[in-house]
Amino acid sequence: MNTIAVDAMGGDSAPVEIVKGAIKAKENGVNVVLCGDENLIKPYLGSTEIPVYHFPQVISMDEDPLKAVRSKKEASINGCMQLLKEKKVEAVFSAGSTGATLISAITILGKQRGVIRPAIASVLPTIDRSVILLDSGASLDVKPKVLYQFAVMGSKLAEALFDIDSPKIGLLNNGEEESKGRELEKSAFKLLNSSSLNFVGNVEGRDFATNKVDVFVTDGFTGNVVLKTLEGTAKLQQSLISASLKQNLFKPFLPSVKKALKPVKDQLNPDKTNASYLLGVDGLVTIGHGSSKQEAIMNGIQYTNESINKDFIGKFSDAIKEL
Amino acid sequence: MNTIAVDAMGGDSAPVEIVKGAIKAKENGVNVVLCGDENLIKPYLGSTEIPVYHFPQVISMDEDPLKAVRSKKEASINGCMQLLKEKKVEAVFSAGSTGATLISAITILGKQRGVIRPAIASVLPTIDRSVILLDSGASLDVKPKVLYQFAVMGSKLAEALFDIDSPKIGLLNNGEEESKGRELEKSAFKLLNSSSLNFVGNVEGRDFATNKVDVFVTDGFTGNVVLKTLEGTAKLQQSLISASLKQNLFKPFLPSVKKALKPVKDQLNPDKTNASYLLGVDGLVTIGHGSSKQEAIMNGIQYTNESINKDFIGKFSDAIKEL
Repeated sequence: MNTIAVDAMGGDSAPVEIVKGAIKAKENGVNVVLCGDENLIKPYLGSTEIPVYHFPQVISMDEDPLKAVRSKKEASINGCMQLLKEKKVEAVFSAGSTGATLISAITILGKQRGVIRPAIASVLPTIDRSVILLDSGASLDVKPKVLYQFAVMGSKLAEALFDIDSPKIGLLNNGEEESKGRELEKSAFKLLNSSSLNFVGNVEGRDFATNKVDVFVTDGFTGNVVLKTLEGTAKLQQSLISASLKQNLFKPFLPSVKKALKPVKDQLNPDKTNASYLLGVDGLVTIGHGSSKQEAIMNGIQYTNESINKDFIGKFSDAIKEL
Repeated sequence: MNTIAVDAMGGDSAPVEIVKGAIKAKENGVNVVLCGDENLIKPYLGSTEIPVYHFPQVISMDEDPLKAVRSKKEASINGCMQLLKEKKVEAVFSAGSTGATLISAITILGKQRGVIRPAIASVLPTIDRSVILLDSGASLDVKPKVLYQFAVMGSKLAEALFDIDSPKIGLLNNGEEESKGRELEKSAFKLLNSSSLNFVGNVEGRDFATNKVDVFVTDGFTGNVVLKTLEGTAKLQQSLISASLKQNLFKPFLPSVKKALKPVKDQLNPDKTNASYLLGVDGLVTIGHGSSKQEAIMNGIQYTNESINKDFIGKFSDAIKEL
């Protein structure tokens, strides 16, 4: 049976919400272990039997990830990666500092053969299905060949997650024409266009609302800003809608309207639907929102567990060889 | 009385929707003139007396803006800029190729004294007010000092448009900490932090849903992708909400719910609310959506007319001297 190492100290509400989320995942049949300070974890575990690996150090959100990962050998996230490296677990899930998770994974697991830079791939809901956006924050400044590799990894991930052949790949740009973009996009366009990927061309921000592509490829800076914009806009709209309904709707209608809108609210709630994978490192690492509460943690752990059997990680190295 | 030159040939539905929008603006008391092929414009004018300046050439969306502006001296957008240059009008409005509008403005009007690169400033709705995002597409690859100038222009624009003192300026980044971002953001942070602007620090995509800042500063590539993401997400959510209500709500409730939600829909409809200014060139130039229909054109022209008296353009050159 697969086991997932969970960083008990990672996240705004760690360790309490992480431990509670792990307990819920365990109750749903997922095999988990917790890494972190056992003195802080055990009080929340109660009678649930989840193995705790004692790693007393914590890397906080505002620490420099590179320095922290190197100086805090006994940090919980380093512990998780170590377990994965030693094959004591099949995957790592953390809602802690993304930078620290990234550096820890690169340092301890290493990059996969052939991979120039890692990427974070985020799975996002659209009208009638999900799409992948990568890189959503691992590698901020990249070369065209790196974007090509992101496209290859994104394509393999989409095949596995969405069970589709030849996922449609789009290059996020400031216009559809081939001539658009910075030098980065112009060169990446040429690489993608001459590759064996199902590259459909440049796509724009508004295409998150269309079904043009399955995978949006961009650098980690743009991807991160876009991801957070999508999340922010979803919340903004929900506030506006709530306010407008309260102000303008006949009051007795409100409960049934709220109920009717719940599926949309859930669909666009990043805690429920978004999952992020760290791609390009030698092992399955998934990333949760820092703001995750126990339900989001449970979902993240379960999502990670389902991902293990999809076995996409092994396909990246061969696929990126082409170039 | 102020007069606005409208590019009759610019936009997906030109000239018909542009001419009709201009007629509506005229009926609402705005003084407009049209630039373009008079043979194509006059049939739609009917008995409305709007002066037409005959410029027979058209620059289409998919032409290389630089080549097109230079080779088509008699292009409608060049005609508009020429009228502004000769002070026959006080402003230019175009829903045509943004690239062509930009190049035409730089070529004919020139940049303002001291301005390194122009920016497009977009005014966007948030929960309870509007914010400015710049650059949303004029200058894709920029230096830190250019971002600083964008902040200065954005600050002056916010003062004038929103009638506020010391607008709050944020640098769009992949995290709040000073250490976040590419070299571009790290250097720009230092410049902004030591300036006399009301710089509140780094902001993230999710802050489009908060009231942290009045002005979001970023490069033209990121800004353009973000702007279109915001627009796309608004449409996506509205589709999801519509579908969810139709599926889940007691049918007779639908009309009143739709009515109650109309204010939100309008508020987030880019055709109704978004306006974009081309900043840094020597004259007032505003930009409409390529997809604008007559109502959006009318709104754009009226918005431009109201902007003339706010007289912010004249304040940029002095303000950017500081650095």
